[in-house]
Amino acid sequence: MRVLVLGGDGYLGWPTALHLSAVGHHVMVVDNFARRGYDDELGATSLVPIAPLDRRIDAWRAVSGRTIESCAGDLVDPVFTHNAIERFGPDAIVHFAEQRSAPYSMIDQAHAVYTQTNNVVGTLNVLYAIAELNPAIHLIKLGSMGEYGTPNIDIEEGWLEVHHNGRRDRMLYPKRPGSFYHLSKVHDSHNIEFACRTWGLAATDLNQGIVYGQETEETRRHRDLSTRFDYDAVFGTVLNRMVVQAVCGHPLTVYGTGGQTRGMLDIRDTVECIRLACEHPAGPGEFRVFNQFTEEFSIRSIASMIQRAAGDGASVVMIDDPRVEAEEHYYHAAHSALLDLGLQPHYLEDTLVESLLSIARRHRHHADASLFVPSVQWRATASPVGPRAHTLVA
Amino acid sequence: MRVLVLGGDGYLGWPTALHLSAVGHHVMVVDNFARRGYDDELGATSLVPIAPLDRRIDAWRAVSGRTIESCAGDLVDPVFTHNAIERFGPDAIVHFAEQRSAPYSMIDQAHAVYTQTNNVVGTLNVLYAIAELNPAIHLIKLGSMGEYGTPNIDIEEGWLEVHHNGRRDRMLYPKRPGSFYHLSKVHDSHNIEFACRTWGLAATDLNQGIVYGQETEETRRHRDLSTRFDYDAVFGTVLNRMVVQAVCGHPLTVYGTGGQTRGMLDIRDTVECIRLACEHPAGPGEFRVFNQFTEEFSIRSIASMIQRAAGDGASVVMIDDPRVEAEEHYYHAAHSALLDLGLQPHYLEDTLVESLLSIARRHRHHADASLFVPSVQWRATASPVGPRAHTLVA
Repeated sequence: MRVLVLGGDGYLGWPTALHLSAVGHHVMVVDNFARRGYDDELGATSLVPIAPLDRRIDAWRAVSGRTIESCAGDLVDPVFTHNAIERFGPDAIVHFAEQRSAPYSMIDQAHAVYTQTNNVVGTLNVLYAIAELNPAIHLIKLGSMGEYGTPNIDIEEGWLEVHHNGRRDRMLYPKRPGSFYHLSKVHDSHNIEFACRTWGLAATDLNQGIVYGQETEETRRHRDLSTRFDYDAVFGTVLNRMVVQAVCGHPLTVYGTGGQTRGMLDIRDTVECIRLACEHPAGPGEFRVFNQFTEEFSIRSIASMIQRAAGDGASVVMIDDPRVEAEEHYYHAAHSALLDLGLQPHYLEDTLVESLLSIARRHRHHADASLFVPSVQWRATASPVGPRAHTLVA
Repeated sequence: MRVLVLGGDGYLGWPTALHLSAVGHHVMVVDNFARRGYDDELGATSLVPIAPLDRRIDAWRAVSGRTIESCAGDLVDPVFTHNAIERFGPDAIVHFAEQRSAPYSMIDQAHAVYTQTNNVVGTLNVLYAIAELNPAIHLIKLGSMGEYGTPNIDIEEGWLEVHHNGRRDRMLYPKRPGSFYHLSKVHDSHNIEFACRTWGLAATDLNQGIVYGQETEETRRHRDLSTRFDYDAVFGTVLNRMVVQAVCGHPLTVYGTGGQTRGMLDIRDTVECIRLACEHPAGPGEFRVFNQFTEEFSIRSIASMIQRAAGDGASVVMIDDPRVEAEEHYYHAAHSALLDLGLQPHYLEDTLVESLLSIARRHRHHADASLFVPSVQWRATASPVGPRAHTLVA
C-alpha cells in the first residue's frame, strides 16, 4: 500500500512513517518543518536530540533496507499539495500536518489565526486534491479527544444517535473544545464530513488522546531515528512533561485541582492504530471516527503514578490553571473501534518504568526547567490592554 | 446606542445601518466592498441600481438629517479591525461582513478557501479586538439556518438538551451544513461560543433564513438609498430570483423536486430583528442563538405562489439539483426567541404582490436571463480532471 504521511517529520508523524515502512508499505513523507521552527520561536528543544529528515531517512535505509521518500512543502499551497499527491499516487494519506499545541494557539491573535488558517486550509487543500485526483484515496486525519471537551454525557466515537421530541437522527457528536487549536480540528471534522457526504470521499478521523512515550520498536534501532520528546509547557504533553520534571527533581506541576480526566495512549499504540486504520479503510462516502486512546486518567492520578514510579521523593504542586476548563467533571468516552480492529494496547503503568523514566533520566542534562512554567494564560491572551504588536508566524 | 455595522454596504448590512440610524442609534459602517467586487468577477449586477456608499450616506443625511459614519477596510487585517473598533467605541457590533453565497464558496478550491479564510479570520479578529478593547461590547453575528442542514429531528435555537445513556447536557445543536460557506458559519459559531465561555464575551448568533424583498421603510425614501436585488444563480436568494424569472417570462427554475423546505423572512423583518437583538443584548459570557425567520416553505410551494401572484401564465421547470442535498425531508425549526422580543412579522403572501413583483417589473429591463442558470455544480467543483488553474480572489 502506498501511504503519504503529511507532517511526517513530527513527533508522531515520523514514528508512524517508520512503522508503516517497517511492515512493508511504500511511504512518502511531506513536511514544511514548521514544528522545528516553533522550537526556534519558543527557545525550546526536544529533550532527545533529533536528526534532520534526510539523515533520518538515510539511517532507516541503513538499518532496514527500506526507502522512505520525502517531499518538502506547505499544504497551505494548493498547487504544491495537488502535485505532491499526484506525483506519489497514494492509496492512503495520513494527515498529521497541523499546528498541534493548544497553548501555542492561545498565545495571541496572530497565533490563533495562524493555527486555524494553517490547519483548516491545509486540510481543505488535501480534500480538494483527493477529490480532483482520485476520490478512492483514504484520508486518515488526526483529530483530538480534546475536541469533545468534557460533556456531562458519555462521549461516543464521533457520531451520536440523538432522540428529541419523539424523533431521532444520527448526528455528529456535539463538541465543546477548549482552545483555538482544538477548534481548528472541529472545523476540520465538519469540512471532512461534508466532503465525504458531497463528493463520496472515504475518511477516518482519529480523535487521539494525549500521547506519552518517545520510543517505538523502529525508532530504537538507531539514534538518528529518534523522535521528539517535548517537555515544555507549550508543546510538551502533560505526562512527558511531568516525567522530565520528576527526573530533574522539579515539583510536578498540576494545573488546578488536577481532576481533569483525559484519555491517553502510548506512542507505540498511536503508530499501530494508524497502521490498523490504513489497512482497514473507510468505505466510499464514509466519515468514520475512532477515539484513539487506551486508558483514562485524571491528571492528579498521573502525577501520583509518576511520583511513585520515580521513587525519589518527587513532589507535586498545584498551580493556578492557565486554561479555562472544568477541573472536576464527568468523563466517560467510548473507544472500542480500534480494539475491534485488533489493537493490543500498552499500559501506562508498565511503560512508565520500562521506558519513559529511563529515557528522561538519560537526557535530563538537556532539560531547561524554565520551560516547565506555563507561559500562556487562556484568559490573558486577549485582555483590555490596548493594541499590541501582532507577531507574524511564517 | 453606538452600533458598528460590519459589511454595512451589502444587501442587508446597508438597510440595517439605515434602520438602526432611523431609530436613533449612532451608526458606523465598515466595509471592504468585496460584494461589489464579486459582481465584477461574475459579470452580474444588482437588478436595482445601487449608489456608492458615500452617496448613500449623503442621501440619508439629506432625507433624515442623521449621519452614518463609514470606514473602509478588511477585517482579515487585525490591526485595521482593532483600530476601527477602538476608534468608534461601539456598544454593539453587527457582523454581516462575510462572503455569503453557498454557490460562490463551491466554485472551486480557491473560492472555498477564500470563503472560509475570509469569514473565519475576520470573525476571529473581531473577537480578539472585542476581548482586548472592551469585553462588554455585544457581538451580533449573522449566521444561517443552512448551518443546521435538514436533520430528522426538530431544529432548536442553537442549543440542544441532549439525553444519552441516562445522563443529560445542554450542548451546541449538532449541525450538518451543505456548503463550504455554511461550514464557515458553523466554524464561526464554535469560535464565538468558545470566546464567550473563555473570555466572558456576550454574543448573539442570528441563524437567518432565506431573505426575500428589497425595500425597507428607510431604503424607499430616496433612490440612492436602494439596496441590492440579486437574482443570479450565485448570489440571488431563491425567492428573489424566481420573482425576476416570472416577470421576465422565464420559467421558474426549481432544483430537483423542490421539496426542500426552508425558513424564510422579509428583509424588513431582518432589519427589525437586528434592532431587537441590539436593544436586548446577551449577557456577559452568554452565547445566545436566535433562529431568524418567520415562515417555512418548500421551494415548490414558493414557485406556485409566485406563479399565482404573477398571474401571467408563468411556468415552472424542475432542473437537476446542482447542490447535494435532500430534496424531500422532515423540517421543523423553532423560532420563538425573536417573536418573544416583540417581532411583528411580515408575511410572504402580502409582500409578494405589494412589493416584490412590482419592484421586479420596474427593473426587469436590466435582467440578464443567462444569470438564472446554475453555473456551480456541487459534485463537479472537485472532480478527477487533473490540476486546474486556481483563480485567486483578491
